[in-house]
Amino acid sequence: MSSTAGQVIRCRAAVAWEAGKPLVIEEVEVAPPQTNEVRVKILFTSLCHTDVYFWEAKGQNPLFPRIYGHEAGGIVESVGEGVTDLKPGDHVLPVFTGECKECAHCKSEESNMCDLLRINTDRGVMLNDGKSRFSINGRPIYHFVGTSTFSEYTVIHVGCLAKINPLAPLDKVCVLSCGISTGLGATLNVAKPAKGSTVAVFGLGAVGLAAAEGARIAGASRIIGVDLNSNRFEEAKKFGATEFVNPKDYNKPVQEVIAEMTNGGVDRSVECTGHIDAMISAFECVHDGWGVAVLVGVPHKDAVFKTHPMNLLNERTLKGTFFGNYKPRSDLPSVVEKYMSKELEVEKFITHTVPFSEINKAFEYMLRGEGLRCIIRMEE
Amino acid sequence: MSSTAGQVIRCRAAVAWEAGKPLVIEEVEVAPPQTNEVRVKILFTSLCHTDVYFWEAKGQNPLFPRIYGHEAGGIVESVGEGVTDLKPGDHVLPVFTGECKECAHCKSEESNMCDLLRINTDRGVMLNDGKSRFSINGRPIYHFVGTSTFSEYTVIHVGCLAKINPLAPLDKVCVLSCGISTGLGATLNVAKPAKGSTVAVFGLGAVGLAAAEGARIAGASRIIGVDLNSNRFEEAKKFGATEFVNPKDYNKPVQEVIAEMTNGGVDRSVECTGHIDAMISAFECVHDGWGVAVLVGVPHKDAVFKTHPMNLLNERTLKGTFFGNYKPRSDLPSVVEKYMSKELEVEKFITHTVPFSEINKAFEYMLRGEGLRCIIRMEE
Repeated sequence: MSSTAGQVIRCRAAVAWEAGKPLVIEEVEVAPPQTNEVRVKILFTSLCHTDVYFWEAKGQNPLFPRIYGHEAGGIVESVGEGVTDLKPGDHVLPVFTGECKECAHCKSEESNMCDLLRINTDRGVMLNDGKSRFSINGRPIYHFVGTSTFSEYTVIHVGCLAKINPLAPLDKVCVLSCGISTGLGATLNVAKPAKGSTVAVFGLGAVGLAAAEGARIAGASRIIGVDLNSNRFEEAKKFGATEFVNPKDYNKPVQEVIAEMTNGGVDRSVECTGHIDAMISAFECVHDGWGVAVLVGVPHKDAVFKTHPMNLLNERTLKGTFFGNYKPRSDLPSVVEKYMSKELEVEKFITHTVPFSEINKAFEYMLRGEGLRCIIRMEE
Repeated sequence: MSSTAGQVIRCRAAVAWEAGKPLVIEEVEVAPPQTNEVRVKILFTSLCHTDVYFWEAKGQNPLFPRIYGHEAGGIVESVGEGVTDLKPGDHVLPVFTGECKECAHCKSEESNMCDLLRINTDRGVMLNDGKSRFSINGRPIYHFVGTSTFSEYTVIHVGCLAKINPLAPLDKVCVLSCGISTGLGATLNVAKPAKGSTVAVFGLGAVGLAAAEGARIAGASRIIGVDLNSNRFEEAKKFGATEFVNPKDYNKPVQEVIAEMTNGGVDRSVECTGHIDAMISAFECVHDGWGVAVLVGVPHKDAVFKTHPMNLLNERTLKGTFFGNYKPRSDLPSVVEKYMSKELEVEKFITHTVPFSEINKAFEYMLRGEGLRCIIRMEE
């Protein structure tokens, strides 16, 4: 039992006081975990687009002050009542979505969209009592997607924590708790390309490169990267991309370009941009008879997917995925093992590292489109 | 070797001289089969909507005079050069689409859309020489989808003939050569409902009822029939339907009605009408996380499938199928065996029988929406 168990912990957290303004490192109070909750000491966290999107608060109801952060690795400090799966000292990855293990989704072999703990970006409090565990001088600070990892300590529902191999280096595998697993799983769990097949990946950001990495691991013979920024191709080669298409270089739809390159279409495509035109292209560029297109990127709320139904009737498949179809608690430990066995290369996703005190630099890198993942070290 | 082998055969055929006019029983000359062709004595044929659609010629280039018919059962009379898979006396089902066994589609485990022999409704001649094998006093009569089974003898590419168990009664299994297998395969091969699952079937014509029959065979616990004609429900019960929804009875979209009936959506849906609104409803009525919608019905050429991409991202799957994903030569014999083993009930699809001389009655039944399948006996 840790000496802090049951006590309020005072520690540093990066608080977003208002939309789009630099985070401020503050001393916060972190209440003990309640029923089914776990208090985690975060050692490493990284910045993902979703943090930036909600921090900018351009498309949703703003909820401030708030502690962002959801890609991270840490160690259990203490557990609340009813928690039997985790104990102090366990190494964990927090996940923005959860697995209660009891709902219809958790019981389905196909779904990871837990009814209880599915991502909820509007909620800023814990499920147990509808309150925050963070405060500054009694003023509550809101949680973000149940993780709030931009804090030295945070409280998380046990269903949103994956217990991982304690030998795995947390400064590397922390990036597996969101974007990398999302792209990797989209390919390995959903698109499932056969060895020797052709795969197109739309969008060569971290998620798309992870999708390409999945295709590389699956043994795809051709991996066609599609991006409006040609500078990304050089880096994409490290993730297995063998060819590159910039839609801006052609005066016809990119699906036609890809069909011509591949004698009728690719075997699989994975869409990681969230732009509706790319979604439609990603679907229409797969081969009739057997092609499968997988949508990963989150679209604008008013977007409409349109296609001629004959594209479907000609035996194409269109699927969407959420967090790469990984169940957070059941499946994420095996992704960490893929890294441990050197099947999955994680280091190449990590392009920057900053100490916690310089967390705003990570935001700057992302806003400038620089690099892929910036690791934030909680211990300076 | 049959005594007619290598000779022109004079026999009766029902010729469509012009669009929408009753067929005329004529004496036609049927030339011997050429390379990779087979001449088949048709014993039983049935009428399918596709025959009527092209006979009406409202939506395509008219091609007359023509011999329609593509659901049938017969016996090989003689074979052309290069045919090794079939010999005179073999029992066969002609199929409107083919399997060359050599193209990328035939070699794929997933596709049945043969590059060489895929359905082509515009072609009225044989592939080998671009000519018809039918004539009347030297005037060629066009073929239809490579089968033209409204003739006592017809010539068919070997790739469009399924060799079946000679013990199977041709007056029953002839209906398996198109519509019934299309619906059955859509469920069994593509939607693949698990035992105990819920299935919605849109459109309760012969294809939709065959889809329901597939769900019954798969052990679905609830089979929800959807049709604008409530009179069809009583018959649908014979095919396993347990519930019925007529969209006209509700003032909200049928996908919402079904979601309410099923705690969030059905596990699988199969769309057999070809109407675009039904396609969209069939997709949107499946459960998030694991739902699979399968499109079977052929849409209007200007139809556009539209949905919000979040419906996909929430882990729904949308697929289309063609001929129930059965490969004609490789897979159709096993469908006949399903009938022989009494797993599949075929008799209930057969609601009428007429002698060949009264073939126009079969058209009348279909145009009036009466019954499911009318068997046409070639021998009076």
